[in-house]
Amino acid sequence: MSCSTSPLFPPRNIAIVGVGLLGGSLGMAIRRQWPDAVVTGVSRSEKNQRISVESGCVTRSVADPLAAAADADLVIICTPVGTVAPLAIEIAKTAGPGVTITDVGSTKAQIVQDVEQDQTAAGRFVGSHPIAGGEKSGPEHSRSDLFNNKTVIVTPTENSDPARLQLIGQFWQAVGAKVVSMSPALHDQRLAGISHATHFTACAVASILQQEEILLAGSGWRDTTRVASGDPQMWSDIAFQNAGPIAEKLRAIAAQITEYAQTIENRDQTQLRQLLNEAKQLRDSYSHRQTPTT
Amino acid sequence: MSCSTSPLFPPRNIAIVGVGLLGGSLGMAIRRQWPDAVVTGVSRSEKNQRISVESGCVTRSVADPLAAAADADLVIICTPVGTVAPLAIEIAKTAGPGVTITDVGSTKAQIVQDVEQDQTAAGRFVGSHPIAGGEKSGPEHSRSDLFNNKTVIVTPTENSDPARLQLIGQFWQAVGAKVVSMSPALHDQRLAGISHATHFTACAVASILQQEEILLAGSGWRDTTRVASGDPQMWSDIAFQNAGPIAEKLRAIAAQITEYAQTIENRDQTQLRQLLNEAKQLRDSYSHRQTPTT
Repeated sequence: MSCSTSPLFPPRNIAIVGVGLLGGSLGMAIRRQWPDAVVTGVSRSEKNQRISVESGCVTRSVADPLAAAADADLVIICTPVGTVAPLAIEIAKTAGPGVTITDVGSTKAQIVQDVEQDQTAAGRFVGSHPIAGGEKSGPEHSRSDLFNNKTVIVTPTENSDPARLQLIGQFWQAVGAKVVSMSPALHDQRLAGISHATHFTACAVASILQQEEILLAGSGWRDTTRVASGDPQMWSDIAFQNAGPIAEKLRAIAAQITEYAQTIENRDQTQLRQLLNEAKQLRDSYSHRQTPTT
Repeated sequence: MSCSTSPLFPPRNIAIVGVGLLGGSLGMAIRRQWPDAVVTGVSRSEKNQRISVESGCVTRSVADPLAAAADADLVIICTPVGTVAPLAIEIAKTAGPGVTITDVGSTKAQIVQDVEQDQTAAGRFVGSHPIAGGEKSGPEHSRSDLFNNKTVIVTPTENSDPARLQLIGQFWQAVGAKVVSMSPALHDQRLAGISHATHFTACAVASILQQEEILLAGSGWRDTTRVASGDPQMWSDIAFQNAGPIAEKLRAIAAQITEYAQTIENRDQTQLRQLLNEAKQLRDSYSHRQTPTT
């Protein structure tokens, strides 16, 4: 990303639509960085509105996204992926002409394509995906350092406004993240392999067992299946936003597992050691190169 | 397991053949429990012989398993699974008639079957599998509490000597473990699903990516693929000791992943949520019921 400063930077009046773990942590990180900023949270439930203010995630909280966005110069949509595009289009219509809208969704191609159906929204939106999160959800688990040294993928298109793109890049850097830029389609291809198909594979591994077998589980099974505890609704939404690339990667994983089965049945020691060495090399390259990004 | 006391309990002169993480930790746990016990370690390299004595894993260390076993009343074989049976047979022949032999291998059916080809060894051997370990290998990472609250599966057969079986159960309890008993075949069936096939699936997930894609990995991929860093030689040995059950479980996982792919391609939201709910329920039953056993 460019290091020059966007004329829109820094944002002063920020709306966070959906104050869960990500939205809440983002509010905390913003308020740490810019103590004078107005951060308006949007939560449906009164309970979450109260928690998000009491925990220091936001300066004030409302239930209506359009009310929150009315005076905002930056709106960050942190709702489930299926709801991002319609919200972005509505907000682009009702907020002032200076507004910049982004999101934190784990899929990008469908969201960006849907947003860009609307001319006004297209020029005011830049998609983002912070690769950060945690097992616990809800604003009460928010942490101002959640984005420190995490990777945020920003996904501009030919329709993106250069000043807004620059603002979004600077914004994520200001809350501690490293910014990477790629097309929405490439983002979804990459994430299908590194995250989405990995998730459904972990679910498949958990599914084939009976409960009494799980009593014998050790740390290998515990870690390999950890993400299978994730929210089924959220992951179902992600699946249908990125169906093609995810299905393709799942079939590649199934084929590779079948190759392991065949190799073991054939008692082909040379081939099995080669497969295991390749897997180890790839996994070790991760351990050696970087600390986890979430 | 029975709570009565074996006439052979407690052991006084113990040989540990192969002093890595498991053997070393076992030595420490034994010496914590019975400070006067003689614990003889067997390590091929002079370096590991030195480390295992200096770290307090064993009271003395030698290179020859038969020399170590000569005076032992309990011999625990902690070498790769492919070497356990031949060692057990040799040791049964050369040690005194009072010796009891066990092991810590992750597979049991082939080992026990091979040992029981030999009449003498059959009566002196009881198979064990402590579900414990760690990412770091070598005696220098040994911990006297490695077996605390871990599950140890003991696998008697109709040829097992009752007093020796009782000794082995009491022994594992004395070093902190919970003991479960089942047949070698059932052990291998269960472990194929909960451990072995899980391991090769994690390797398959790691394998389908290019190195540059791994740069975007978050904690989901990190945990799902963690075990792919394991030793290829060790896992190749395990694969061929338990080939049938592992291949069967791998094909079940591949079929389940293919069902996920099909469901996502069909945009079948109801079916996908059902699959994800089932997986979550199984995974959550683990989280709620117990702390990890390794």
